[in-house]
Amino acid sequence: MRKLNVAMIGGGFMGKAHAMAYAAMPMFFWPAPAIPVRKVVVDINQEMADAARDRFGFEESSSDWKAVIARDDIDLIDICTPNNAHAEIAIAAAKAGKHIICEKPLARTGAEARTMLEAVQGGKSIHMVAFNYRRTPAVAFAKKLINEGRIGEILNFRGTYLQDWSASPESPLSWRFQKSVAGSGAVGDIGTHVIDFARYLVGEFAAVNAMTKTYVETRPKQTGGVDKLGVGGSEANAERGPVDVDDEMLTMIRFENGAIGSIEATRNAYGRNNFLTFEIHGTKGSLAFNYERRDELQVMFADGPIDARGYRTVYTGAAHPYGDGLWPIPALGIGYGETKIIECYDLCKAIVSGEQPSPNFEDGYKISLIADAILSSGETGEWVSLK
Amino acid sequence: MRKLNVAMIGGGFMGKAHAMAYAAMPMFFWPAPAIPVRKVVVDINQEMADAARDRFGFEESSSDWKAVIARDDIDLIDICTPNNAHAEIAIAAAKAGKHIICEKPLARTGAEARTMLEAVQGGKSIHMVAFNYRRTPAVAFAKKLINEGRIGEILNFRGTYLQDWSASPESPLSWRFQKSVAGSGAVGDIGTHVIDFARYLVGEFAAVNAMTKTYVETRPKQTGGVDKLGVGGSEANAERGPVDVDDEMLTMIRFENGAIGSIEATRNAYGRNNFLTFEIHGTKGSLAFNYERRDELQVMFADGPIDARGYRTVYTGAAHPYGDGLWPIPALGIGYGETKIIECYDLCKAIVSGEQPSPNFEDGYKISLIADAILSSGETGEWVSLK
Amino acid sequence: MRKLNVAMIGGGFMGKAHAMAYAAMPMFFWPAPAIPVRKVVVDINQEMADAARDRFGFEESSSDWKAVIARDDIDLIDICTPNNAHAEIAIAAAKAGKHIICEKPLARTGAEARTMLEAVQGGKSIHMVAFNYRRTPAVAFAKKLINEGRIGEILNFRGTYLQDWSASPESPLSWRFQKSVAGSGAVGDIGTHVIDFARYLVGEFAAVNAMTKTYVETRPKQTGGVDKLGVGGSEANAERGPVDVDDEMLTMIRFENGAIGSIEATRNAYGRNNFLTFEIHGTKGSLAFNYERRDELQVMFADGPIDARGYRTVYTGAAHPYGDGLWPIPALGIGYGETKIIECYDLCKAIVSGEQPSPNFEDGYKISLIADAILSSGETGEWVSLK
Amino acid sequence: MRKLNVAMIGGGFMGKAHAMAYAAMPMFFWPAPAIPVRKVVVDINQEMADAARDRFGFEESSSDWKAVIARDDIDLIDICTPNNAHAEIAIAAAKAGKHIICEKPLARTGAEARTMLEAVQGGKSIHMVAFNYRRTPAVAFAKKLINEGRIGEILNFRGTYLQDWSASPESPLSWRFQKSVAGSGAVGDIGTHVIDFARYLVGEFAAVNAMTKTYVETRPKQTGGVDKLGVGGSEANAERGPVDVDDEMLTMIRFENGAIGSIEATRNAYGRNNFLTFEIHGTKGSLAFNYERRDELQVMFADGPIDARGYRTVYTGAAHPYGDGLWPIPALGIGYGETKIIECYDLCKAIVSGEQPSPNFEDGYKISLIADAILSSGETGEWVSLK
Repeated sequence: MRKLNVAMIGGGFMGKAHAMAYAAMPMFFWPAPAIPVRKVVVDINQEMADAARDRFGFEESSSDWKAVIARDDIDLIDICTPNNAHAEIAIAAAKAGKHIICEKPLARTGAEARTMLEAVQGGKSIHMVAFNYRRTPAVAFAKKLINEGRIGEILNFRGTYLQDWSASPESPLSWRFQKSVAGSGAVGDIGTHVIDFARYLVGEFAAVNAMTKTYVETRPKQTGGVDKLGVGGSEANAERGPVDVDDEMLTMIRFENGAIGSIEATRNAYGRNNFLTFEIHGTKGSLAFNYERRDELQVMFADGPIDARGYRTVYTGAAHPYGDGLWPIPALGIGYGETKIIECYDLCKAIVSGEQPSPNFEDGYKISLIADAILSSGETGEWVSLK
Repeated sequence: MRKLNVAMIGGGFMGKAHAMAYAAMPMFFWPAPAIPVRKVVVDINQEMADAARDRFGFEESSSDWKAVIARDDIDLIDICTPNNAHAEIAIAAAKAGKHIICEKPLARTGAEARTMLEAVQGGKSIHMVAFNYRRTPAVAFAKKLINEGRIGEILNFRGTYLQDWSASPESPLSWRFQKSVAGSGAVGDIGTHVIDFARYLVGEFAAVNAMTKTYVETRPKQTGGVDKLGVGGSEANAERGPVDVDDEMLTMIRFENGAIGSIEATRNAYGRNNFLTFEIHGTKGSLAFNYERRDELQVMFADGPIDARGYRTVYTGAAHPYGDGLWPIPALGIGYGETKIIECYDLCKAIVSGEQPSPNFEDGYKISLIADAILSSGETGEWVSLK
Repeated sequence: MRKLNVAMIGGGFMGKAHAMAYAAMPMFFWPAPAIPVRKVVVDINQEMADAARDRFGFEESSSDWKAVIARDDIDLIDICTPNNAHAEIAIAAAKAGKHIICEKPLARTGAEARTMLEAVQGGKSIHMVAFNYRRTPAVAFAKKLINEGRIGEILNFRGTYLQDWSASPESPLSWRFQKSVAGSGAVGDIGTHVIDFARYLVGEFAAVNAMTKTYVETRPKQTGGVDKLGVGGSEANAERGPVDVDDEMLTMIRFENGAIGSIEATRNAYGRNNFLTFEIHGTKGSLAFNYERRDELQVMFADGPIDARGYRTVYTGAAHPYGDGLWPIPALGIGYGETKIIECYDLCKAIVSGEQPSPNFEDGYKISLIADAILSSGETGEWVSLK
Repeated sequence: MRKLNVAMIGGGFMGKAHAMAYAAMPMFFWPAPAIPVRKVVVDINQEMADAARDRFGFEESSSDWKAVIARDDIDLIDICTPNNAHAEIAIAAAKAGKHIICEKPLARTGAEARTMLEAVQGGKSIHMVAFNYRRTPAVAFAKKLINEGRIGEILNFRGTYLQDWSASPESPLSWRFQKSVAGSGAVGDIGTHVIDFARYLVGEFAAVNAMTKTYVETRPKQTGGVDKLGVGGSEANAERGPVDVDDEMLTMIRFENGAIGSIEATRNAYGRNNFLTFEIHGTKGSLAFNYERRDELQVMFADGPIDARGYRTVYTGAAHPYGDGLWPIPALGIGYGETKIIECYDLCKAIVSGEQPSPNFEDGYKISLIADAILSSGETGEWVSLK
């Protein structure tokens, strides 16, 4: 069984999720397409890298990502850094002929994403962007139902991503609120997940018309180097720094196939935690999903007995996508980890088969263009074409 | 106790709801502000009027609404006709000095609504538009929480009204699909209820930017004079006629107070029946409502113990608006009828007190202007100001 | 159209619900089987009776129920009194040949219920017990699905009735907590509704084995004559009196057809308002209902595509029982009132047709026997046979 | 950092879950109490053991569990076999002074469990029974709320465990349907999880009174050695064999502290997948949990503003038990894996500290006694005391 030596750049929350996926993927999907080997983990200094190595079960640690990319024994570069480091690392990895998985969003802007796409074009790198939520079995099942025509032609799409971990102005000034690092705010960080859903399930965007807002304009600065999230992460009496990205976005969408839709993404939704939802109405039925209850897909078929019509609460399991590898009984429970395990599985399949997975850097680039268009429309108030 | 003699024009579904309210209001709210007397019901011919009289418990029947308005013994004109008859009847009633309740939307267009508003201005008529859903106790409770500052300043509003009774192209060509009678489609028929929520709960609209669509372009014509709704209402092999109104609308909103929002209204949402919802995020908490589960308001307060934060499912009862008159235990159950009973109560209070209720013809006119702006923006793709 | 002159005994909360039903039933179900005429209302003194007459729209008032029963022009006696008055009134009504609707439970004990059943046996009275909740369209639809074999043979039934209006020991000492008036506590007041569901949907009881408890042993006494419910109903520093009935009941059930089941009824369930539920598993599917969301029946069929199995949320409407008379679109909303309107409809149909409705006094008697058996088993800890 | 060498006996579904936990625990909880080392995996033959080694990332494989237990370098024996092998292995491990985690139920009967408990008594083994569901953060949070007195004294408990993977009589004859291997059916396999909840959250059982049933009396026999679950697992025209265990159980409970309760466990609940629920009512509030939506605990406090009472949907996260180690934002999502990761964490803490964890073999023994009592009461129909 082929082994893939992984070098992971970045040892924070995302590093944890990816490391777990490398360890667990073959346990779930067996025989595995390949066995990922946690070879080396890179962090910003040797001390943090050593800690990440011990915690995440890597063989080696390093604080020099360039040296790691230069190693012959590394097959896959896994980019778990903040957004501003994605491009430089990915381009270097592409030049070195490595396979690449890059956390989302691919880049801070469409222009930056384009440099990354160009770097992999014509090369031998398999490349993936880590929009993991589409790998939730219930979302993959929605895709399957649509592909099979079971809800007919899609008329409309409504997606939301609502969170509240930073709804309080006392939540610390993470890099996620700084344009130079993050590129944008709610648009890039959470909105792009919904854009990925919309492209995956409905199709290409023709145009967007959006509003963007920044309600919380300053936040407490952080010290100590570790980026924190949420209330309780701030030090008392910390100096406040400016937020220069959006924290709420609302966009209308025209799809190329004639469907219409909307996306709302906000970090100011008290009471919503990871409220990533969609509802899709078709000519033969409807679908609804809420990641907070991710084991379920709501499915409505317009045919059948007139007295038994209604949304069905379908719990995904063996009969659904990825069912062979996951837990044997529906509602034993899909967590965040499983979405990453499936992502790892699809990535390894792609590497072994040589066929680019989806979403790859081209998808990541298109999503960044849409994010740019939303931000632009938010300023001008006008429709922005994506054709 | 003062009696109010009612003349009801129109004996269909809305006539039923209003007649029930006249009979039941004093049973619920006692002592009642006034006792409505079901004096005379008017329908399009004497036979139908006689049937309505017997069914709805009126003392008299008539097919001549002008003669009825001319009677000295009538206090209140209740307009339950299709939209295209609202203006003529309301203006005549205003001239005759009658109090008026008119079904929603007030008129087919803002211009038409304006003629109605002008007719009541300076007169002694108490006037109301029957946007009954805001009288659901849970919605009135949302208003109370907002007024008391318990969710802080409002940041955003998302409203939907999704239905499927006409999602099938085989649903008959009701007057609701004909512009000359209805004025517009989903915008006027269901979207205006959400606009009423938005104005009631958030405030005045500054501008809208919308999309409108007509997915189902023809429907089976009806014969026989009685307007039918839904699948099963069509005759086999009926000739088809054109639908010249929208069946889906999506709009972004800028409110005057700086909040933003969106409304989606569609008749093509398989699986949604009377899915009239809103979610409001404020600086101190959030609210969510779904009319399909109308006994409940979801309420989230950002303060309190950090480990016990979450949306509360509050069932409205004695502790909530109108609680003194309604059923003594929460979840005994509010139905459509209760919303009309409360509406009747507020109308009678207004008549007795001499103070205009809300929403009145001025509100109805403003809502019609917003509907016009949505339709206009749907054609041009541009923001339409409402200032 | 036949008219039925009604004499209603008792003008409290139940009087309101019944009066509304008499007024509204023909508005909903047209042509109506008969037109109920609100002829005379009886209360404990003339002043209260006069108020009830005005409020509920009766023609006359009286404080002498015996005199009213003796009148030739009365067709139907409607018993809305506390439980301890049911038997005397019903027996007198039966002797006078009147039709009777009696609030539930039929009597304080099985023995008392038997005297009422014997009084109507052989006579011409149509008799009904007002277990209104089975008339919720979603419950009637459950019955229809079972009758049509669509969930196969029933294996088990789980029913609950959970409330919290008296969970606080400060809730006043209503007659509902006094054995001499009420007969029993949670068993008779709310448990009997679930017993009615179980007999209606599954079949006759063979035996029960139960626990009963009284958690709140004293409550503040009331003064002033009007019985109050819930927190806020107590006067400050009121003297406390003993509660001599159960406030929680839990029973196992063996049905005659081999199914098994359980019922839990409690008044101490903080957070539950009118949480009247059942879940039924059959050999071909399942059903679940919660009155707090009474427009919905959860329906699961075991057949069909393996990937689309799950409970369907069916909103009852035109395609379901009583759909012709109710609101034209599902989720416009069934409230407590509608359950009483339907009850009135079925009662009038029975009177006109001469066929006893269900549940009638025989059902009421059997339910009282089951309640007795539960109370007895609660004391002895042993199975009590009902054969 | 201390390392713990693990020998895992059994490489099926449970082996997968445990192996993942060993790999991922330190990634979640860092610094970890100890680092589990996947040393050797044992299966019924060498070929299966080798496959398990490769799949689950163990260093070695073996088909001789006795030889493995005899090794000096093994610290922890992990028993993932069918129930009939638990006792022999655990007793041998105890004699060898190993730490032990044993899958649930601890044994087929109370008598068998007692032999296991006696084997560890007086020794140095840390021992745990893998009732993992109580480690769901929402369940641990319920325990914390109860311990802090935030819902007052507990009045009652209602627990269910409903599944449908074997509701069809065509589901294969797994060992779980054979008394000689499993000990019992729904009682032992799923009912014991709810018994564990009840003891954990409410307290010791004083007595039970139960019904047990076997609806599906034969199932298709399996060939090939790998035990299968669910529809689709059966070969066509397979010979059928007898089911000699219960598939439905319903019990009433008297707790020692005066609370009462019930448990229902059934494998015949079409539409329920892993419907493991409880509802607890206390004198100051209530709790409700459903594992199918395991990120949520429903929490109701009786105090606070009268108009804002209701169950809160609390999503567990950083503010809740185990929050430091899990995902940083509530509703990123707890799956089955996380319950096992937490279990592994608590086990390692116990081993390092030398204090027995909960539930340990004493708890497992008491649960087996309760299971015996339920089965006995199911036959006799009488209360069975557990004192």
